[in-house]
Amino acid sequence: MAIRQGRSRSHEPEVVAGNGLIDRRVLLGRGILYAGAIGTGASASLTGAAAEPLAVDPWSLGPGSLIPAYGQPAKYEDKVVRTLTNPTGRPGGQNARTPHHLLNGTITPNGLHFVIARAGAPDIDPAKHRLVIHGLVTRPLVFTLEALARYPMVSRISFVECGGNSASLYRKEPAEAGVQAIHGLLSCAEWTGVRLSTLLEETGIDPKAKWFIAEGADGPSMNRSIPLAKAMDDAMIALYQNGERLNPANGYPMRLLVPGYEGNMNVKWLHRLKLLETPIMAINETRQYTILRPDGKAWQFYFPQEVKSFITHPSPGLTMKGPGYYEISGLAYSGNGRIAKVMVSADGGKSWAQAALQEPVLSKDLTRFRMPWRWDGQPAVLQSRVWDEAGNIQPTRAELLAERGEPKSNPPVTAFPMEHMNAITSWAIDSKGEAKHVYA
Amino acid sequence: MAIRQGRSRSHEPEVVAGNGLIDRRVLLGRGILYAGAIGTGASASLTGAAAEPLAVDPWSLGPGSLIPAYGQPAKYEDKVVRTLTNPTGRPGGQNARTPHHLLNGTITPNGLHFVIARAGAPDIDPAKHRLVIHGLVTRPLVFTLEALARYPMVSRISFVECGGNSASLYRKEPAEAGVQAIHGLLSCAEWTGVRLSTLLEETGIDPKAKWFIAEGADGPSMNRSIPLAKAMDDAMIALYQNGERLNPANGYPMRLLVPGYEGNMNVKWLHRLKLLETPIMAINETRQYTILRPDGKAWQFYFPQEVKSFITHPSPGLTMKGPGYYEISGLAYSGNGRIAKVMVSADGGKSWAQAALQEPVLSKDLTRFRMPWRWDGQPAVLQSRVWDEAGNIQPTRAELLAERGEPKSNPPVTAFPMEHMNAITSWAIDSKGEAKHVYA
Repeated sequence: MAIRQGRSRSHEPEVVAGNGLIDRRVLLGRGILYAGAIGTGASASLTGAAAEPLAVDPWSLGPGSLIPAYGQPAKYEDKVVRTLTNPTGRPGGQNARTPHHLLNGTITPNGLHFVIARAGAPDIDPAKHRLVIHGLVTRPLVFTLEALARYPMVSRISFVECGGNSASLYRKEPAEAGVQAIHGLLSCAEWTGVRLSTLLEETGIDPKAKWFIAEGADGPSMNRSIPLAKAMDDAMIALYQNGERLNPANGYPMRLLVPGYEGNMNVKWLHRLKLLETPIMAINETRQYTILRPDGKAWQFYFPQEVKSFITHPSPGLTMKGPGYYEISGLAYSGNGRIAKVMVSADGGKSWAQAALQEPVLSKDLTRFRMPWRWDGQPAVLQSRVWDEAGNIQPTRAELLAERGEPKSNPPVTAFPMEHMNAITSWAIDSKGEAKHVYA
Repeated sequence: MAIRQGRSRSHEPEVVAGNGLIDRRVLLGRGILYAGAIGTGASASLTGAAAEPLAVDPWSLGPGSLIPAYGQPAKYEDKVVRTLTNPTGRPGGQNARTPHHLLNGTITPNGLHFVIARAGAPDIDPAKHRLVIHGLVTRPLVFTLEALARYPMVSRISFVECGGNSASLYRKEPAEAGVQAIHGLLSCAEWTGVRLSTLLEETGIDPKAKWFIAEGADGPSMNRSIPLAKAMDDAMIALYQNGERLNPANGYPMRLLVPGYEGNMNVKWLHRLKLLETPIMAINETRQYTILRPDGKAWQFYFPQEVKSFITHPSPGLTMKGPGYYEISGLAYSGNGRIAKVMVSADGGKSWAQAALQEPVLSKDLTRFRMPWRWDGQPAVLQSRVWDEAGNIQPTRAELLAERGEPKSNPPVTAFPMEHMNAITSWAIDSKGEAKHVYA
């Protein structure tokens, strides 16, 4: 803590990287050294003795509204919603993206968890729903929800991310888009359920089994092949999402959770697990979720979501109100485990400073990073870059494209095959404080 | 792991305490030794080869419902709601209790977070709301939401519990009630906001200041006196609850969070903090939240919620369906820090076994404990008891009453002064599998 010694309030805190990044240790302890800098600015007005008789607001003059049995967000927050593709539900899929630029912390409320549904959310009667485990097992079994409730459960906070999240970074020109449009197919919840390994103890496993397929009860019978090793590691039949039963669009009454793996492997509305010797080569692992390389070969069965981060505050749509101190914050995660560190740049990658990580840092969870910043009112380019504990490093966009091939066009954001985009995102701040997506 | 060596499936797992409690290490690893025991019972039917052609359910035959911009729980979960006192809102307070027996994990969804409101939820316009900090400060300041958004933020998962939660355990005869009615004034969320100490760096602190009052903008101007030391420790101006802005009934647009302290000290709809030399002796720290002792003296300014636990599964209303294996699980917490261990008894406290704790175990957070249990179909009495890392032990009801005086009547659950009840709760299971609240 030597950095703080001998400093008075009239001193500026130590700038540790270009364009005003401040040592992260100023952030999470006591003694914010820039006290007064905001108070004398436009955003918090000094009132002196006038503060004593606080104005009586109209809502303080009488009773408020009744408490409902199930609460809803404040009416003033009606813009904090998921953006929907295909809102009329014509045949085809629907995507619902999480508004991370309007959220903070790491948990995603269940009403705002991202959704990709190929044919809407099926209306499943939980009393009639069954989970079958069969194939290369000693004895196939059918589980009701009531039976599952008797098994030992586990809880874990875990992100789920669509394999196609952030695909617009494959575009030749930067999309005019913000956090929600680019990175909104990512969410995080506390999931509770029964370990799949517990249920496979019940069925027994034929030694020939090396894979299993998971199939949903939705109309399209969404299915994926998954290595059996994942079942024995940390896969879960999730029954609860942030304490309550799963949201209908997130798999009610049960989904597979394969922490860190591509979103659609976490099969929703789960009703079948079948153990097999080989994968079944389903559409979602052949036509989609397979990355064609420049040399004509392809990455296939490429499950974990790579190490990744992006800045949520500031970001497009959140205009900064004049020079001074701000907090840069964002989300970092890795499908391979815990993250190790996040570096932030305010000068487009020329210099970097280490961000503070909000504890606890959990495996395959979202971690909020935070960095204090004194903006001088001049143009700046904000970036974040993350390292995970397995030694993986988030690539620059140029590094990633050097491996996968340069884009030749501007396909729509949802074009495929364009999965596993985990490059650094850049937000350019102009002198008006507006943020714009750029390649830098 | 020596316990597992040499055991085959035909062996029973080791019973470590009376009435069928099983070693917790069987719980959270692989290799549940009782595989098959449930499969041969009534609750999961063996299907053999018949499992292969899974019946096609009606919801699998066509598209489902459209994805909404803000999701709601499944219609089948319409009983998973808060119970409300005073649902017509006649003048007076309203309590809304969390249905912990229907939840799992530790996070409480925002719609189900407990509420005590003395006059409903005020309809506060966030653009007009102000937070004033004044009194014994160097310079009083007024903060808008926009100003607060520029400060460094922190997140923490923390429980909030009403000081009067579990008051019915003070009744002379056990209340015919379950988890929601007895312990439902307790919830848990990830809270994000600005440390109060950060804002006090801005205002400066007069050395004479030893307390502060926090006052809400609701009609009753709810207020409490709090030691300034708590402000400098871990108090927060909370702006986000599980990622999104606070729920209206939980303090929108801002509340004070004083982790581990009595619920109503976490003042909702916060608009004033005033630093003082002494407490103001408000109604909520004199008439209420002061415990009269048998000797005529009283405990006053008695802030942290004591170490406590209770079993949520099984509990009244969750009838067990025949003998066999079940998971006993529940919640443990302490306003003094992390919990250290939870012991569970199935024979009314004659013998105890250590429960497994779901990681991560965080300070002033809810911790889910789990214990495998083989119920033999005979009457049993379930109890849990928790130790915190500060060395505090949850008392038996007899131990607690020996200090505070024996109840002479059956007052209504909400009578006062009857706060800080943290005694062990007992659920008697009868031979039909029904649970009932008893004193044991």
